Amino acid sequence: MMRQATTILDFPTNGRGFAEITRAVAQWIAKTGIEEGLVTLLCRHTSASLLIQENAAREVRADLLAWFDRLAPENAGYSHDDEGPDDMPAHLKAALTGVNLSIPVQRGRMLLGTWQGIWLAEHRRAPQRREVAVHLIGQ
Amino acid sequence: MMRQATTILDFPTNGRGFAEITRAVAQWIAKTGIEEGLVTLLCRHTSASLLIQENAAREVRADLLAWFDRLAPENAGYSHDDEGPDDMPAHLKAALTGVNLSIPVQRGRMLLGTWQGIWLAEHRRAPQRREVAVHLIGQ
Amino acid sequence: MMRQATTILDFPTNGRGFAEITRAVAQWIAKTGIEEGLVTLLCRHTSASLLIQENAAREVRADLLAWFDRLAPENAGYSHDDEGPDDMPAHLKAALTGVNLSIPVQRGRMLLGTWQGIWLAEHRRAPQRREVAVHLIGQ
Repeated sequence: MMRQATTILDFPTNGRGFAEITRAVAQWIAKTGIEEGLVTLLCRHTSASLLIQENAAREVRADLLAWFDRLAPENAGYSHDDEGPDDMPAHLKAALTGVNLSIPVQRGRMLLGTWQGIWLAEHRRAPQRREVAVHLIGQ
Repeated sequence: MMRQATTILDFPTNGRGFAEITRAVAQWIAKTGIEEGLVTLLCRHTSASLLIQENAAREVRADLLAWFDRLAPENAGYSHDDEGPDDMPAHLKAALTGVNLSIPVQRGRMLLGTWQGIWLAEHRRAPQRREVAVHLIGQ
Repeated sequence: MMRQATTILDFPTNGRGFAEITRAVAQWIAKTGIEEGLVTLLCRHTSASLLIQENAAREVRADLLAWFDRLAPENAGYSHDDEGPDDMPAHLKAALTGVNLSIPVQRGRMLLGTWQGIWLAEHRRAPQRREVAVHLIGQ
């Protein structure tokens, strides 16, 4: 019978950079006992985001960070700057990659490719506590 | 028992800029009576898009618009220019932010963060009528 | 009664460029017999991606490709370059457009707009075989 589960997972971040959350999501899915379905993640913030990217080469993440900075540099004459020079670029980077992901689940596992991991991207300089809402529907 | 509802919501836009649609979506969810589930939005156009961003500071939206223009400027030598100089940049901006969103729902409310709103981004200069398909599954 | 179906569709690509997959997805949906629901696609790779864009004017796709190259050029001093000069730009382009899409389905058809098609974007130079996981839930 079709059923669903919802939770909010908490992740500390170390400031600007990526935190892999694939395992935390996989473990929560396993606990629900749902074997086939759809899992959806929503990062509940406007200066952090979610993306699926390379889980092996560390250099890919370094290049991604540098690229985010090139597309959304600090001190580019933003009108919204009262929360610090890293704040508006953080909003832009969150808009660039988006805050939600949906992933099919089969045999209790997300159908990610071999080289795909789920990453929480922190765009503020300072460490934060970030919430990701997670919903799973299936059976 | 699990059930679903589907609709198409209509939004007029004032030309280039953002229209917040959070309340319209929330009201439609409330009418379905579904308490826990997943809502999915699809903007049915290729020169308008959807994003989740800051719902408070108006300057954030102004900075987002300026940033869109910087990444996808008009008159950048596009081959597709028969619908006006704002048309191809509008397609690029729609590709940048994407046209679909999925958001978990709990206790009849979307699990958006405190500062998150759902925005329909109009990328054409002239006012338009935009359709957003909305699907909700849950119970 | 609510039910679901999951598959993995295979698409050959001709190297850098777009392959339209709308019809293949529509045909699979028709075979499931599900009339109303939600279809979710996940591209299982980190150097190819999915987007919904203009299905008519060929020039739009040419302009999109040129724009991807402008935002994520080759030889921009990446630290990850052991898989060729097109590899890191491919990761960046995949991060830009994203690898997953969710689309409401009604009367057995995706609620795409008239001008919207689903495109698999290949960001590597060489032809590849790409897998897209597809999940449909509904009734």
